[in-house]
Formats: sequence, C-alpha cells, structure tokens
Amino acid sequence: MVEALSEAERADALDGLPEWDFDEGRDAITRTIVFADFIEAFGFMTQVALIAERMNHHPEWTNVYNRVDILLTTHDAGGISPRDIDMATAIDAIVEE
Amino acid sequence: MVEALSEAERADALDGLPEWDFDEGRDAITRTIVFADFIEAFGFMTQVALIAERMNHHPEWTNVYNRVDILLTTHDAGGISPRDIDMATAIDAIVEE
Repeated sequence: MVEALSEAERADALDGLPEWDFDEGRDAITRTIVFADFIEAFGFMTQVALIAERMNHHPEWTNVYNRVDILLTTHDAGGISPRDIDMATAIDAIVEE
Repeated sequence: MVEALSEAERADALDGLPEWDFDEGRDAITRTIVFADFIEAFGFMTQVALIAERMNHHPEWTNVYNRVDILLTTHDAGGISPRDIDMATAIDAIVEE
C-alpha cells in the first residue's frame, strides 16, 4: 500500500519539481506543457504512456492541439504519494530531451 | 474556410451519430468511451491521433486510465462543422473495430 506524503514531505518534493504546481482541491500536482504542434505533443504523450504503463501509474491528462495538461495523484493513497513524484520526475526528463 | 452547420444540418448530422452528444455551451459534440484498460484506451488515442493529423483537425480530449472524453468543434468556424462530423464518424469506426 502506497501512503500519501505528509505536508512537509510534499513541500520538499515540490521544491525539487519547480515546473509542477500543487492543486489543493484535488490533492494533486499539475503541469501544463506547450509544444510546437500536435505531433510533438502527442509524441510526448506516447512516451509518457509507455512509462505510465511500466510504472502502473497513470496520469489524468488533457490535450488540445499543442498543449498537454497533466494531473498526478494517487487515488489509493488519497493524495500525492512518492509514485506521483517519480512520475513527475520521469515526465520532466522526457520534456527536457 | 469551413462554415459551421446550421441548426437543422447539425440535428441531421447528430441523428447519424447516436453515440455523440451536443454540448450547447461549447457548441461542440462530445463522446465518452470506456475501454478495458489503459493500453486499450491509449491504443485508441494513437489511432485517432494519426487520423487527426491526416485530417488536420484535432480533438480536445481527456484521458483518465481506461476512459477517454472527446470534444470536437471547429474553432475557425465558431461551432460544429462538417469536419467535426467526419472526425466523429472516423472515431466511431475506430471504436467499432
């Protein structure tokens, strides 16, 4: 069973993820990424999809043309868990490529 | 320039697309599809992405694990155009496969 991070742990983790925002209402972290076009945006989503399946941890995400909005939370834990931090870190690495 | 459908044209088109709903607020058509799992859901999205790029007409869509919510509208036309009807028809064909 994955446990949600404490408030202090979450704050620490978010310090290391400057591109991500804390969504208090959803108890989640969010990031919006704007790409050059749909091909780049969906190419990114495909990379994230494979990682998500491998991690067995899936984002909530919306795509409109060149824009992708991602929300990460761990329903089983009732909030943000280390799995979300790992996924956010993996997503940042894909974006930086 | 693509023109939006008239109200009568839209009603006719939607009669042929029973899986789609009219979103009056967005002047769009929407469909939600629930798959067995994320692999099926994202596999579907990949097929739609290729069609969307070929048609140069892209959906607004949200994915949460096995669920995909799709919204189609034609911003250039300020509403639902024949391009949305074509895309909805193509999406239905992919789902039926």
